[in-house]
This record gives sequence, C-alpha cells and structure tokens, in this order.
Amino acid sequence: MAVRVPFLNTACGAYHHRERPGPDEELTRVGPGTPCGEYLRRFWQPVILSDELRDVPRRLRIMGEDLVAFRDRSGTIGLLELHCPHRGTSLEFGLISDKGIRCCYHGWLFDTDGAILETPGEPADSTLRERLFHGAYPVREHQGLVFAYMGPPDTAPDFPILDTYDLPGYRMVARAPTVWECNWLQIKENSMDPAHLAFLHTLPGSQGFTEDLGALGEWDWMETPSGMVYIDTRRQGDRVWVRVADFIPPNIHQFPPNADPMAKRTVINRPAATTWAVALDDTHTMQIGYYRAPEGQEVRRGAGFGQDASRTYADRQRVPGDYDAQVSIHGGVARHSLEHLAATDRGVIMMRNMIRRGIRAVQEDADPMRADAPNGTAIPTFGHDRVVPGIPPATTPEEDRHVLREVARNVVTQMIRTSSARG
Amino acid sequence: MAVRVPFLNTACGAYHHRERPGPDEELTRVGPGTPCGEYLRRFWQPVILSDELRDVPRRLRIMGEDLVAFRDRSGTIGLLELHCPHRGTSLEFGLISDKGIRCCYHGWLFDTDGAILETPGEPADSTLRERLFHGAYPVREHQGLVFAYMGPPDTAPDFPILDTYDLPGYRMVARAPTVWECNWLQIKENSMDPAHLAFLHTLPGSQGFTEDLGALGEWDWMETPSGMVYIDTRRQGDRVWVRVADFIPPNIHQFPPNADPMAKRTVINRPAATTWAVALDDTHTMQIGYYRAPEGQEVRRGAGFGQDASRTYADRQRVPGDYDAQVSIHGGVARHSLEHLAATDRGVIMMRNMIRRGIRAVQEDADPMRADAPNGTAIPTFGHDRVVPGIPPATTPEEDRHVLREVARNVVTQMIRTSSARG
Amino acid sequence: MAVRVPFLNTACGAYHHRERPGPDEELTRVGPGTPCGEYLRRFWQPVILSDELRDVPRRLRIMGEDLVAFRDRSGTIGLLELHCPHRGTSLEFGLISDKGIRCCYHGWLFDTDGAILETPGEPADSTLRERLFHGAYPVREHQGLVFAYMGPPDTAPDFPILDTYDLPGYRMVARAPTVWECNWLQIKENSMDPAHLAFLHTLPGSQGFTEDLGALGEWDWMETPSGMVYIDTRRQGDRVWVRVADFIPPNIHQFPPNADPMAKRTVINRPAATTWAVALDDTHTMQIGYYRAPEGQEVRRGAGFGQDASRTYADRQRVPGDYDAQVSIHGGVARHSLEHLAATDRGVIMMRNMIRRGIRAVQEDADPMRADAPNGTAIPTFGHDRVVPGIPPATTPEEDRHVLREVARNVVTQMIRTSSARG
Repeated sequence: MAVRVPFLNTACGAYHHRERPGPDEELTRVGPGTPCGEYLRRFWQPVILSDELRDVPRRLRIMGEDLVAFRDRSGTIGLLELHCPHRGTSLEFGLISDKGIRCCYHGWLFDTDGAILETPGEPADSTLRERLFHGAYPVREHQGLVFAYMGPPDTAPDFPILDTYDLPGYRMVARAPTVWECNWLQIKENSMDPAHLAFLHTLPGSQGFTEDLGALGEWDWMETPSGMVYIDTRRQGDRVWVRVADFIPPNIHQFPPNADPMAKRTVINRPAATTWAVALDDTHTMQIGYYRAPEGQEVRRGAGFGQDASRTYADRQRVPGDYDAQVSIHGGVARHSLEHLAATDRGVIMMRNMIRRGIRAVQEDADPMRADAPNGTAIPTFGHDRVVPGIPPATTPEEDRHVLREVARNVVTQMIRTSSARG
Repeated sequence: MAVRVPFLNTACGAYHHRERPGPDEELTRVGPGTPCGEYLRRFWQPVILSDELRDVPRRLRIMGEDLVAFRDRSGTIGLLELHCPHRGTSLEFGLISDKGIRCCYHGWLFDTDGAILETPGEPADSTLRERLFHGAYPVREHQGLVFAYMGPPDTAPDFPILDTYDLPGYRMVARAPTVWECNWLQIKENSMDPAHLAFLHTLPGSQGFTEDLGALGEWDWMETPSGMVYIDTRRQGDRVWVRVADFIPPNIHQFPPNADPMAKRTVINRPAATTWAVALDDTHTMQIGYYRAPEGQEVRRGAGFGQDASRTYADRQRVPGDYDAQVSIHGGVARHSLEHLAATDRGVIMMRNMIRRGIRAVQEDADPMRADAPNGTAIPTFGHDRVVPGIPPATTPEEDRHVLREVARNVVTQMIRTSSARG
Repeated sequence: MAVRVPFLNTACGAYHHRERPGPDEELTRVGPGTPCGEYLRRFWQPVILSDELRDVPRRLRIMGEDLVAFRDRSGTIGLLELHCPHRGTSLEFGLISDKGIRCCYHGWLFDTDGAILETPGEPADSTLRERLFHGAYPVREHQGLVFAYMGPPDTAPDFPILDTYDLPGYRMVARAPTVWECNWLQIKENSMDPAHLAFLHTLPGSQGFTEDLGALGEWDWMETPSGMVYIDTRRQGDRVWVRVADFIPPNIHQFPPNADPMAKRTVINRPAATTWAVALDDTHTMQIGYYRAPEGQEVRRGAGFGQDASRTYADRQRVPGDYDAQVSIHGGVARHSLEHLAATDRGVIMMRNMIRRGIRAVQEDADPMRADAPNGTAIPTFGHDRVVPGIPPATTPEEDRHVLREVARNVVTQMIRTSSARG
C-alpha cells in the first residue's frame, strides 16, 4: 500500500504537499493474474448487449483481455481470444459462419467453445484440429445481455438470478452500455455514497433527481445476505421516506427511483436499474445492465443526465454530473492515500473492506462471498424505497435522527428476515 | 526468445491461455544497433518517390532514424539527419538552396553529402566548416524512386539492378507509398504465403484476384540464387497453371499478375510489381516500389483493394483485405510463440530462417546473402506465371498433386539453370 | 550529463552518428523536486490572465503540477491543488462561491488560501475543517496577469516590479498566452541569440521585423544587475543603431521594437514586450506577459507571425517562424551534446551558466540571484534601442567592428551606472 502523504495543516501550504503516491494496487488492477482481476473473474459479468451481435464480429476488451464476441448463424454466441491461434490475425475481421467464426486470412474455422472445426489447406491427415483449441470463455444470454465467466473453468459458479430480474408488475430492458474513462472501483464506491445526492444531483440545472434529495438525509449502511445496502432516510411531517440501495459484490448496484418527490410516494418501489461496472482495463469501465419501470410507466432510455462525456466541457463545468465527479478523481485511478475519509464515507470504507476480503479469499484459493440462493430460487436483494407513515417527530433534531435511523433499520431487517424465511 | 505458452487442449479454456509473450526481438527490431536493424542497413532501400522532392524538404523516418530528404536547385538529392548540428532545429523547416539546404534558424548551409558550406555570423577565420560534417547518407535515384544506403560506408554494396527493371515489352512506374501500422516482418511473410490467396483474396466482394485462385493450389517453396520463391500450381483439364513469386532478401517481393482467369493465360507474364517493405520503425512499415504492365495494358494506380486503411471499419470487417489481415496480427508485432504454424506455413518458416541467417552473419561481421550479378548484368529473378499445356491428370488426386509439383519444380529449376548459364 | 557523441568529420557519415543522448536533466526538468523545478519555484510566475477567471474554474498545469485557478464572488483569486482532499474529484468541476470554491461531489468548501470552510454532512462536532487545509499557493494580481509563488512559503521573495511596468508615455496590456510544445530552456535561449534575427526573421515572407536586421550585426553580451543583455549594433553612415535586449532570470525577456527601419529611429524606445516562458511541464511552455507601445501607437494583439502553430505545415515550411525553429529542436527537448556551439552562441552559453549557478545555489539552500530593488523602487532593466549619431566609420571593417562594440558597451555601461546611482 502507498505511503500516506502528510496531513496538510497550514494555509498556502501546497509546496509541502506535492507527493503523488500510486493507487491501491490490490483493489484497482484488473488484468489477468492481478489480485483484483482474479477476484472479478470469479463472477459472471455482462460483456455486451444481445442486440449488438449481428452480422459482423465485435471486438471487446474485458479486464485487460482482447476478445471477440459473435453470434454464429445457428444462433450460438461465442466469446473467443481476439487473435487467431494460427498466425495471429484479429478475428474482428473474421467471417461469421453457420457454425462458428472463420479467420479471414487462411480460413481456419472455430466453434463457439474454441474447438477448431477446419484448417483448410492442411494435409488431409492433419490432426491439429483434434488436438488444439482456440481460447474461449463460456457465455450465457439473459434478458438481452450476454454474460461471460472468465475465471477458472472448474470453479464456475451457477449463473445468478436476482429477484429483481422478474418482478411482477415491472418491465425490464437491457440498457446501452457507456464507457467511463476511469477505474472500476471509484464508480462502484459511488453506489454506497448517499451523501453525493444531496449535492451533485440536486445542483441547479441537474436533472433526474427530486429536489427533496437536496436536504441532508440520515445515512446508514448494513450488510445483507447478498452484499450491503445504504439507507437514506428523510422526514416530511409524520411520514418517513426510507431509500435503500443495494451493492452486490463484486460490481452490481441497484438504486431506488429518484425522480418523484417524496409527497407522491405511496407504494413500495423496487430498483429502477440493476447496473454492473465492468472493468475493461485499469482505466476504462463499462456501465451496463438493466433499466426497469412499473408497468404503465416508460422505461428510461439513454444514459441519463451527466452519465457520460457527451456534453461540452463548458456544460460539464457549469452543471457537473456523476461522470465528471467520478472520472475526474485523481486523473482516473483514485489515490487513496490522498483522501481524507470522514463520517459520510463509512459506506465506502465498508465496501472496500468487503471487496478486499473477497480478493484475499481468492488469493488463498477460497471462494469469495457470492450472493446465492438455494434450489434455483432468485437471489434476494433489498434495494427499494417506501414511505412509512405515522411516525411523529421526536422532540429534538438529534433524537429524531435516532428515530429515523431506527425506523429505517427495522425496514431492512424485516426484509432480510422475510427473505431468509422464504429461502 | 519468448517462452512458448501452453498448447491449449480444452474447450472454453481461455483462462489458461492468457500469457502474452513478447515478439522475436532478433527479427523485428529495426532501430540503429539492433540485430535486424543492422542487417536491413546492409541493403539499398527506397525511401521516397522522386516526385515527392519538390520545393520543400521532406521529413522521413526510416528504421527509427529521423531524416530529411530534399533535392537542391542543382538537382542533387540529399538525405541528412533531421536536426541541424548547430543548435538542433529541424531541417524540415530548412530552405532548399542552389547547392544544399540551409537551416532556417541561423543560416548554416549543408551540402547533400553533409559538408558544411557556410556558417554565417561566425568569424571569418572560423575553421568549423572545414572540420565538421553533418550526418548524411548516400542516395541513388532509379526510375522514379530514391534509394538510400544506411549501413557502414566502407561496406556499401553495388546498387542492385533486378532483371525486372527493364523488361522488353513492359512499362514500369514508381507507385505511391502506403504506410502499414505494423512490423515489417509480418508484411513480408505474406509474400511467401500462397495459401491466403485461396481465402482472403477470393472472399465475396474482394477485388483484383481471379476466382480461379479460390481453389486450393499445390504449394511449394524453393531457394533461388536471389532468395526464394513460392510456387502455386493448379490444373484445368490438361493445362497446368504455374505461378511463381519471388522473395529477395531482405524485403523485396515480386508477384505474378493475379487478375486474369487461368483460361485466358497464353504467355509468360513477368511480375506485375516489385515491392519493398521498408521499416519506418518497429510498428510502421512503408510499402513502396514499382508497378509494371505489358505494353498496351494500363499500369495499376493506387494502392489496390484492401491494401491500406482507407476504407471504413465496417467495410473492412465485411470484406477484409491484406491490410486488415496482416496489420491486425497481435496488435502490430507478431508474437511467434502464440502461433501454431502448420504445413501451409513452410514458406514463412523458410523465410524467417533465411532472414535470421542474414542477421547472424552481420552480427559476426560477415556479409549477409545478397542477390548479386557479375559485370553489371541484372540480377536474375524468377517471379512469373505460365500455363504448361499437355499434362493429362494422374489417376488419383494424390498422384496428381505429385505431378503438379514436379511440373512446377521443373519450370523453376530450368529458369535457374538458364539464368546461371547467362551469368 | 550525457556523453558527448563524436564530432563527425566525414562526408556521408551518418551511420557513425546515430547515438541520441538525453537532455541536460539539470537544466530542463521542471517537476516538483527536480533541481531546475525547485529553482524556478523561487520566483513569482504568471500563470493566467486576470480576464480568464470568470464564472467557471480554470484547470492549469504549471511545472508539472495540476492546479485549479478561480476568482471567488468576493473577487479573491485562489490557486489550489486540482483534486479535492476529500475524495479526489477535480475542482475544475467545482462551484465558485461567495467565498472560495465548493467541490461538486460532496460540497466541501475551500477558501482561496486552502482553509476548509465547510464539510456538509459531517457531524456537527467534526473538527476536520479546523485541522486540515487544502493545498494552495499564494497569488498576486498585477496589471492583468495573475502571478503565483510555488516555492517554500517561508522564503517567498517580494513581488518584483520591473521599471518597464509603468513607463511614462507607454501603454501596457497583458497578452493572450500561447503554449509551445517544447522545453522552456530552448525558448528562453532564443532571447539571448541576436544572430537568428539576421536569418529567421528576415526570410522572404516573414513579418514584423525590418529588413535592416537582415545584415549581420556586431553582437555582444554583458551581465547586468538584473541579469544579462545582448547588444546588437549596426551602422548607417555616421549613425550607429544600438539594440539591447534583457534576460532577467529565470525566464523573463524584454526585446526592443523591431518593426521600424533604422532610418526612422530618433528616440530611445523601451521594450515592446515583457515575456515569461512558464514551464507547464518538461515539454510544454507557456509564453505569457505584457505588450506595450508608446502612447498614440497601437499595442500589438495576437501572437505575432510565426509565434504559434496555427499556420499550416506547408506554410510553416515555406516561411518558418520562431515557433518552428525552436519547438523543432531535437523533438522538443534540446540535446546539448548534439550541438556544436560557436561564436554566435556566446549569449546562450552565458545564459546557461547563469541559470546553472541559480539552480546550484538553490540545491545548496542559498538564494538564487534575483533581480531586486531597495525600498519598493522598481527593478532597473536595460532593454531598449537608440541611434547614436556622429560616429564616423573607422578605416577598416575590422576596426569599425571595434568602434561599434565600444559605442554599444558604453551605452549599456552608462545605463547601469545611472540605475545604480538611482537605486
């Protein structure tokens, strides 16, 4: 870990604060063989939309590996090493075939699992195609996303189904992925950081978040059977608004819907999105996943305000969004030893510890903590929001903060109990 | 040399195949002082078209060296180190003079051989210009190309004249150079690889190659007095089509014409092009040379289909060309230890061995093998195509392959004998 | 220091001259902790125009440090480390406040001296903002430029006022900065190099310099109380034109006006510009400063001919300017061991020695030589031009050169005496 630079305690003291320590290698490096890279590879990861696989192959970079994805004419999806095992030509120029993909240079044909089906031009008695495989990863298509498992084949986990994939009364669509030019971790940390809603997302000119969120909430965090949640709680009169967001290791989050004002909330809302931050390499991360909406409401399209780099620099300066606040951290890879974490960062600290435990488990050849469910049932998650009525304010603000916290913790605790009983 | 990664022998096994060894340094590095760079510098190399030398200097990068080429007003061509020996200003901003080139900054004047003609502002008794030379390389203009010799001055070889430079009945023109973003070797290997014609160049939508080439040929390779050839042989009825392509070390190839169908071929056709792959640096290579055509036919203009990066990515994916297949190999510099060479790659293996012998000869202070001819006669080369009539098929396909091979070898052997007798 | 490459003494000898030694690290590296970087940080440096500080923060890179500059709504200017000390978000996306700047992510508020004014969301009893400061540098606004002092706070020098800042009868404006893609030193060396005026600036098609400068001058250099000067002297009949340019360490120069022909010159002209070459990093340098003109004349606007990269490459090749001659030196950072300095480079040598003495003084914890003036008076500088009448030519050109030199030295010596008496 990097040396901690001095805590600066004088005005106009920048001259004494110029060391720039490196990032936390254990948590931020994602390539093959790195501790975090090996950890992330123990989970199914979405790599592309189903819809993006059409008549030509798609070149991908996932966790520092160059790959090609395609759907052959029989409908089977392949995810292969990018470069042909014969002479190295990129299969992004390969020809999609009835079965598998053919290298354009000399016509070798590869099946979706890496089997070599043809080596034209080689002698009839060549056994190369019986002995050699091209590198392939197993894939699974689910509701419009293509997932891959890039870890050791013999320890592949079951494909996880979250309870939010098939919610009665909700429609779900796969969303167009966006690439963020920064490390995966600082994106994910944002998901357990309710405090920024009270600033970044309620700036004048910002869109998509009710101004009710501009007031400081009562913030809390809890571990859950599938990871952890933040709890963001506010009061209006006798009504208490409890907002719960999931973090599901290693890189999923689910937020409750944020746009409607508290006064309009009458039902329990499950998450408006399920989002993965898939590391493309150490400094590029793909946000990909599902949007959902209650039947009768429109499902969001597009990346959302401030969720990409498409606005002008001037606009981004005037009304910054998530992309600007997160990507700009330390030039793309956070330097933790330059931070000064405080009370509002308890969730970030909890999350880092949870991820670090997973990384170290994998380093010791153990399974990392993984959200799971028995007998093919769906994995319970806890993200939602609701308004609890009939809670009169306490006599002092300080006491009321305790009340809000207790109400909110009870809500989550009850959900966990219910889910455990069902499991 | 890099460690060979495991031969992958399981489906969905990419996790076990993620090492990315480096390139073969001996064959691929071209800068000053590198083994391959020193080898390549023992040969005259074309560096620019005559026509490109006009009223302003031309900045060049050749084998990792920054140079400036110009033609002074007396018509003499100079190839000098880019940076002025006085204070380092780039001579790409120099002023072409009646004799030599003048640095724009302080007016020092350099002759085409590096002699310093003037150092204005210096005292009248300054002897600097008698004592100091600017770095220069000898050049030679030939049929529209400017060649340079960048090796040790005391071992400069004669300027080589190929027999294809002045073929009776053929017209020849220097072609516009194209830059390929990859190492020189993988471009050159393509020239001894007849197999790719049967795939890449006969894909639907591809241009410039008769579909007769889409059938597998009988492929063979032979050493010649000037290097090596591939022999690509096919049959139609009693007629046998023999296609011979030259590789002349270190980086010349000559292909027979490919566009006309076999049925139309009635004469012996000498090569349609003579092409050098000049290393600009380790990852950029210039294709430059001559096109030629029989009198009465048009000489090709432009780079040809798929011979550069000018098409859209989508078009290149749909109908890939040579540029796409070769440049995309392992991201620009082939990693030989990731390859799985097979029977069709015998020519590639022969070529690598031939180049490696040359590199090692130079490392041991010997002359590398160089195509040569006595008494100023032209160097014999062997690229051509012809149809041999009156060869009935053998009784089995396997036996016929032997027949084709024998016919073709006899053709080349006879050419070599004739050329030796003439020499 | 780099090994000196052989002095090349043969024609066509480039093969023996291919080593490319590195730059002089002591004089060219500008980052925190480097010898030259520490030296440059002992001086106030202009970093931005006052006019550029408006409604959004400005991201700056100065001597390899990433910073943000802004003017808060009370009018106070801040120059802070770019990244928020809380979680690292770039303050280029910060919100300018009534007092200080607020991070967009979680709302921490920083005063212009780095004091932390607010940490919203933190507990009421948090003492973080009393204990922690954000990194800040002291700034000073002067006549349209914002200057910063980036050295050790306890050894900050007085803000220097040059005598040219408030010349009776002259108007002065801050000029739009330009960025040159090269090291700071080679730009600054140009200022003590009168020889290039006789070539570069009087090329056909060049603008801004009278053709009188195209004749070789008599060139001399002298140390002064504020640094050094070059003296460029020419004759027309009995009139001697003496041009004097200042170099004021570490990176200021002042040139006399150059556009009018000698015949028109009747008065003493003080410098037309005061220019700093501020190192942004090792390979990018900002030219910034003041233009001035006698009352009634127009002050120059824009960068001037050849003073930036805005022209096409072809135009820059045809009529190169200062930018082309200086930036192109050795690809952006001069390699001194590839130079061959001569008589015309005596000023460059003097300047390098002066800078090196300053660097070494700082390395030994001493103060570097700094232009200074007692009791708040302005620092005397010596740049100007004048015509001295009534000096008949000597009998030989060689003797006349001595006459010119003596006249010119007397002019400067007299100025220095007068300034010392006044001080």
